[in-house]
Amino acid sequence: MKRIILTGAAGILGKAMRKALVGWADELVLSDIVPIEEINDGESFVACDLGDFASVLELVRGCDGIIHLGGQSVECSFDNIMNGNLKGTYHIYEAARQLGVKRIFFASSNHVVGFHSREDRLDANSPMRPDSLYGVSKGFGELMAQYYFDKFGIESALVRIGSCFAKPIDRRMLSTWLSESDLADLIKKVYAVNRLGCTVIYGVSNNPNSWWDNRHANFVGWQPKDSSEQFEEDVFKNDPLLANDNPALLYQGGFFATAGHFEDK
Amino acid sequence: MKRIILTGAAGILGKAMRKALVGWADELVLSDIVPIEEINDGESFVACDLGDFASVLELVRGCDGIIHLGGQSVECSFDNIMNGNLKGTYHIYEAARQLGVKRIFFASSNHVVGFHSREDRLDANSPMRPDSLYGVSKGFGELMAQYYFDKFGIESALVRIGSCFAKPIDRRMLSTWLSESDLADLIKKVYAVNRLGCTVIYGVSNNPNSWWDNRHANFVGWQPKDSSEQFEEDVFKNDPLLANDNPALLYQGGFFATAGHFEDK
Amino acid sequence: MKRIILTGAAGILGKAMRKALVGWADELVLSDIVPIEEINDGESFVACDLGDFASVLELVRGCDGIIHLGGQSVECSFDNIMNGNLKGTYHIYEAARQLGVKRIFFASSNHVVGFHSREDRLDANSPMRPDSLYGVSKGFGELMAQYYFDKFGIESALVRIGSCFAKPIDRRMLSTWLSESDLADLIKKVYAVNRLGCTVIYGVSNNPNSWWDNRHANFVGWQPKDSSEQFEEDVFKNDPLLANDNPALLYQGGFFATAGHFEDK
Amino acid sequence: MKRIILTGAAGILGKAMRKALVGWADELVLSDIVPIEEINDGESFVACDLGDFASVLELVRGCDGIIHLGGQSVECSFDNIMNGNLKGTYHIYEAARQLGVKRIFFASSNHVVGFHSREDRLDANSPMRPDSLYGVSKGFGELMAQYYFDKFGIESALVRIGSCFAKPIDRRMLSTWLSESDLADLIKKVYAVNRLGCTVIYGVSNNPNSWWDNRHANFVGWQPKDSSEQFEEDVFKNDPLLANDNPALLYQGGFFATAGHFEDK
Amino acid sequence: MKRIILTGAAGILGKAMRKALVGWADELVLSDIVPIEEINDGESFVACDLGDFASVLELVRGCDGIIHLGGQSVECSFDNIMNGNLKGTYHIYEAARQLGVKRIFFASSNHVVGFHSREDRLDANSPMRPDSLYGVSKGFGELMAQYYFDKFGIESALVRIGSCFAKPIDRRMLSTWLSESDLADLIKKVYAVNRLGCTVIYGVSNNPNSWWDNRHANFVGWQPKDSSEQFEEDVFKNDPLLANDNPALLYQGGFFATAGHFEDK
Amino acid sequence: MKRIILTGAAGILGKAMRKALVGWADELVLSDIVPIEEINDGESFVACDLGDFASVLELVRGCDGIIHLGGQSVECSFDNIMNGNLKGTYHIYEAARQLGVKRIFFASSNHVVGFHSREDRLDANSPMRPDSLYGVSKGFGELMAQYYFDKFGIESALVRIGSCFAKPIDRRMLSTWLSESDLADLIKKVYAVNRLGCTVIYGVSNNPNSWWDNRHANFVGWQPKDSSEQFEEDVFKNDPLLANDNPALLYQGGFFATAGHFEDK
Repeated sequence: MKRIILTGAAGILGKAMRKALVGWADELVLSDIVPIEEINDGESFVACDLGDFASVLELVRGCDGIIHLGGQSVECSFDNIMNGNLKGTYHIYEAARQLGVKRIFFASSNHVVGFHSREDRLDANSPMRPDSLYGVSKGFGELMAQYYFDKFGIESALVRIGSCFAKPIDRRMLSTWLSESDLADLIKKVYAVNRLGCTVIYGVSNNPNSWWDNRHANFVGWQPKDSSEQFEEDVFKNDPLLANDNPALLYQGGFFATAGHFEDK
Repeated sequence: MKRIILTGAAGILGKAMRKALVGWADELVLSDIVPIEEINDGESFVACDLGDFASVLELVRGCDGIIHLGGQSVECSFDNIMNGNLKGTYHIYEAARQLGVKRIFFASSNHVVGFHSREDRLDANSPMRPDSLYGVSKGFGELMAQYYFDKFGIESALVRIGSCFAKPIDRRMLSTWLSESDLADLIKKVYAVNRLGCTVIYGVSNNPNSWWDNRHANFVGWQPKDSSEQFEEDVFKNDPLLANDNPALLYQGGFFATAGHFEDK
Repeated sequence: MKRIILTGAAGILGKAMRKALVGWADELVLSDIVPIEEINDGESFVACDLGDFASVLELVRGCDGIIHLGGQSVECSFDNIMNGNLKGTYHIYEAARQLGVKRIFFASSNHVVGFHSREDRLDANSPMRPDSLYGVSKGFGELMAQYYFDKFGIESALVRIGSCFAKPIDRRMLSTWLSESDLADLIKKVYAVNRLGCTVIYGVSNNPNSWWDNRHANFVGWQPKDSSEQFEEDVFKNDPLLANDNPALLYQGGFFATAGHFEDK
Repeated sequence: MKRIILTGAAGILGKAMRKALVGWADELVLSDIVPIEEINDGESFVACDLGDFASVLELVRGCDGIIHLGGQSVECSFDNIMNGNLKGTYHIYEAARQLGVKRIFFASSNHVVGFHSREDRLDANSPMRPDSLYGVSKGFGELMAQYYFDKFGIESALVRIGSCFAKPIDRRMLSTWLSESDLADLIKKVYAVNRLGCTVIYGVSNNPNSWWDNRHANFVGWQPKDSSEQFEEDVFKNDPLLANDNPALLYQGGFFATAGHFEDK
Repeated sequence: MKRIILTGAAGILGKAMRKALVGWADELVLSDIVPIEEINDGESFVACDLGDFASVLELVRGCDGIIHLGGQSVECSFDNIMNGNLKGTYHIYEAARQLGVKRIFFASSNHVVGFHSREDRLDANSPMRPDSLYGVSKGFGELMAQYYFDKFGIESALVRIGSCFAKPIDRRMLSTWLSESDLADLIKKVYAVNRLGCTVIYGVSNNPNSWWDNRHANFVGWQPKDSSEQFEEDVFKNDPLLANDNPALLYQGGFFATAGHFEDK
Repeated sequence: MKRIILTGAAGILGKAMRKALVGWADELVLSDIVPIEEINDGESFVACDLGDFASVLELVRGCDGIIHLGGQSVECSFDNIMNGNLKGTYHIYEAARQLGVKRIFFASSNHVVGFHSREDRLDANSPMRPDSLYGVSKGFGELMAQYYFDKFGIESALVRIGSCFAKPIDRRMLSTWLSESDLADLIKKVYAVNRLGCTVIYGVSNNPNSWWDNRHANFVGWQPKDSSEQFEEDVFKNDPLLANDNPALLYQGGFFATAGHFEDK
């Protein structure tokens, strides 16, 4: 791995990956719309508004791969979604095409499928059912990636990240938790496999009660090692059971699915 | 878990679960049509003929959940089937509805799918093909449970129990064995999950040559820990191979499928 | 066709089939729990309570086939369901087995799948989701038929009848209508095919907006000729649109699915 | 039908639908970004840039349904796509939500699935594989519609229009042709059905060599009456065969799939 | 269509196609291992043993397409199968590759799937289950065709012919009958479509009780016009019903499936 | 296990199995077209050209099972393929039928499915897409086995062997490697299970990035214990990455799929 870009490097996920990927690439090019002060050996920083194509083109020039965590990562106004996630994702792929970058790790989200029932087992072929404008924008990103693969041969991992935190903190996360270490392993596998294609991968650790089946991505060789099981007791203590007809229990997206429209608030 | 009813408590399965669930519920209300003499701390006993609605209503009153192992558990005459398994299961669900009980563990049976070939891998979507009047009655119970879920929101685990004994004693059981400990774990999981729905679960331990795939019930988080593998050598010694066209080898239900009609005997 | 039994001959469907099948069988043995006064040439009458095995055995003796329309045909109390549809169907199949009758036309019902969404296209492999105790009992009948086929080789047509009337009278029936003439044709086809197996057939005419796909039963060769289309205008006038979130529009079973429990009423 | 909006009314499709729908609605509110001079009885005109939310809100106020043909209808620059198809579609759905409009006819496109092979038979469950930025934007629109249905109950017909012209003019259109009359019928059916849900419908006439299967939308009751067959001879004369490995023959999207990136040109 | 080869031209099918295709090709090159005496305008004759590669190469030189009906067309000894159907089919494809022929109509057979149950509805994705050495050899031919398509781009129609005769003469043929006229239409369609791929097509007329679904080949545009229905009455008279457990009724291949091994006889 | 034949005993696989199966059978009858000099206790040797039926019949007489590794095991001329793999496999099955042998381990190959994409997850139902004449011949063998099972009840394991060597030596083998020890375990399981049927099994160890799913063969109880993971680092060093559009990366068959026709070379 030579020169790899990490967008959204100032965010929670970005910070965790900086730590977890130390020593992996010759140069990890951090990028964000907000400045990052402390730059370590093997890292560099390029400020970039993903909504501005010239900046993105500048950022992507000379890189060998892109880990695209940037843009909005929760529900917000359509204007913000549009700038960071619609224009932003288009800019990343179009810059890759113009500059010959061949492989992108795209941080999609479980909120692309958030309106599926929790009793449904999903795999890469399950239809998208977004639970938010944010989820719609991630679905858009997946379609854009598929288009750039089918027409221009740019490969992507479409990683529908569950809940990537130090540990699961509520009952839903017992199903959706992705450890930072497992995510870092996945990034490495995505860049180690000789042929990636355009492949949906659910970003989830080896939790006993997961809703997602990664069998179609087995060829990538990723085998998550962590499990939410060890945190079960703690979570059970701190997060009380809901009534079994509470709408927040019906859908995989949890409160994203039961929240109203962002712009009403 | 507060007050949980255990029907069929005097049967083999019921006895095993009494032991395995010690300390789990505040009160385990044992029930059977035959008397149970020795009642332990944390247990109580209510005699009940499942075919009599008034008794069932009395039994269910004030409970928080039902583990329904009662009724006929092998092939028998249609009259017995009707009383214990048709009327009995209806009475349990109707009592639950009238009294507001929200979750039922229903001991269904592999004999609901006993006429499938042993070379077929089944999952929760496989069509029912009962191998006996007993199997038909368990299928009826599953339909009744589905109806009470769709219309009244009563959740059920429809557990198609394989062969629940201390250990597997013939070649077929190497595929179908369910350890008592794994069954007890499953009961606990069924009452621990925040949303259960109406979910088919094959009651089988982690045997290497199982016919059944529980992937659709993965969200429940049950991971059986025992395996028939350790008993393989013993079984091979004691249970000779049959000719490969012996009808008893063709169907998952084994001799249930090849036996004639009960009432002829 | 020599001697064919028609159960439920005094009911609406039974009356219509008596007319439509004139001349088809050497003898059409009418049967019902209520008396039928006018018996035509080529018909005979045997009174029979389906809940009484001795009577059923008497009825079935000497016949070459059974058209089983009898039992309860709408939601009612569990006791009535049990007598007519649980015991009754068992008695029909068990009598057929004892007396060597090889083929049964079983009038099942769309209410076996009434809790499926109207936007779902069903076929013979769709799981049962009954919308009523009546629907549960018809599902039981289908399982019983499957059991007698798998074990004893008795063939059945499991005909999930939609709405069999002279013409469709509400918007739902534009999807579910089965003309009497198409039903009679189906009966003839079921007895003309050389091998029937145990086959689910949706009993619906060639309506433009049907929910059901009979492709798996194509080998029977039934091609319904009538269509609800000609009645569309009349129905639209007489049956006003409901609000699009009205629960009665959600499910295929219509008001069966949204009605409460029978015995509460 | 009372007051229905027709966006994109100045376009080719819009003009055809104005003619075909005469007399269907009390008022057909024509809308486009370019002016329309001749307004007939039963029509009115409201100029509207779909990229401007205030205008869209003004347009939608007081209407009973929306036929959304507006926005870009061929490949063009991302900026144009973004304004007309990303912002535009969001604005239509968000205005509908705020103002209580309950049903939208959304003109999606076959270019949402244009990278599927011509030898593949598609139905409503086939994954999206867009062949252009335009196709990506229509996929975005379908996701947005699904989101507004799942969260807010707004129903949509997602009509993947093939080639809607007076007649097919090349060999590909023998598969994809949609007559104007069949499209108008579809619009009427979409507003006549009591429950629509959020339903994918391939907009194609009854052509003998179509690639698309509308079985999942059968409940809508649309039965296209025209066929490309009568034009076959003419087309064969005027459009020569290509070599069988010509890339334009491989994909359903035809030259959309084999064209390079718009902004290069 | 310029110069097209017809192998097996002296056989029953070959003779029928000579008549039905008059005027279709500039030159129809008849070929068979037995001599054909009467050669019409627009025809020529080349004797050829398909088991001899040099002869096949000579035959194929200069042609624009091949209709391959030759080889064994019923069960026979493995030696005959090997010469005509294993070597023969390899020789046809290898000659086509060496000489640049791009499209082959391969007469496969329903006996490739003859061990499927008559109650199963088959389509192009159904697994092969040959009912005879002959059926195995036709399956081999389909695999060979698939190989030459995947590696060398030679397109094939793999036509699983049912029963191609002037009219159906037994009950099984009511399901499997293919009229000569429909077969000729299919040949024309196979050579008219611009892209064929390697496509399984069941060769069956529009019979009401067919077992086969050609939906995946719909893009070819073939719509058979004849039906066995008009012959039903005659067939019913002349071909008596069998007992419903007669093995010949169980399988689609009919007596091919129930016959023993050829070389025993 | 009494007297078991091992064809192809002089080949690489044959040698490895001789070692791995020491002590398993009463007598392991080694067979090959080339002589084997060193014969150990518990072994015997019979020279046999699989293309000669009389020899095969002699070989098979008196045996209890056949492990059929013989014939061509890589791409070669059609004449060689025909003798060893077409005639040879027919001879093995026909001899088994004549002499009453009931179970055959057939060494099929991953090259039967070599033209599937590496991004596709295959299972026993995936259609065959051979990548070579060799692959076509193994597909022929699978069809022959299926035929002898359906008609004569001879059971087979159709083992699609990946890459069976001491260790994986290139990147592709990290997916396809089968350890010799796992293969020997599989042979034992195939002969230990009471009912085998005719079952496709992918012969692959427990590699993290395998393309193949053996769930449908789970009833056999085989659980491979080795994994390519330990060899990953070595392989990565010695086998450089290819460009991601290199054709050899597209297909599961690797260079078999991208090689031209054997007889051209």
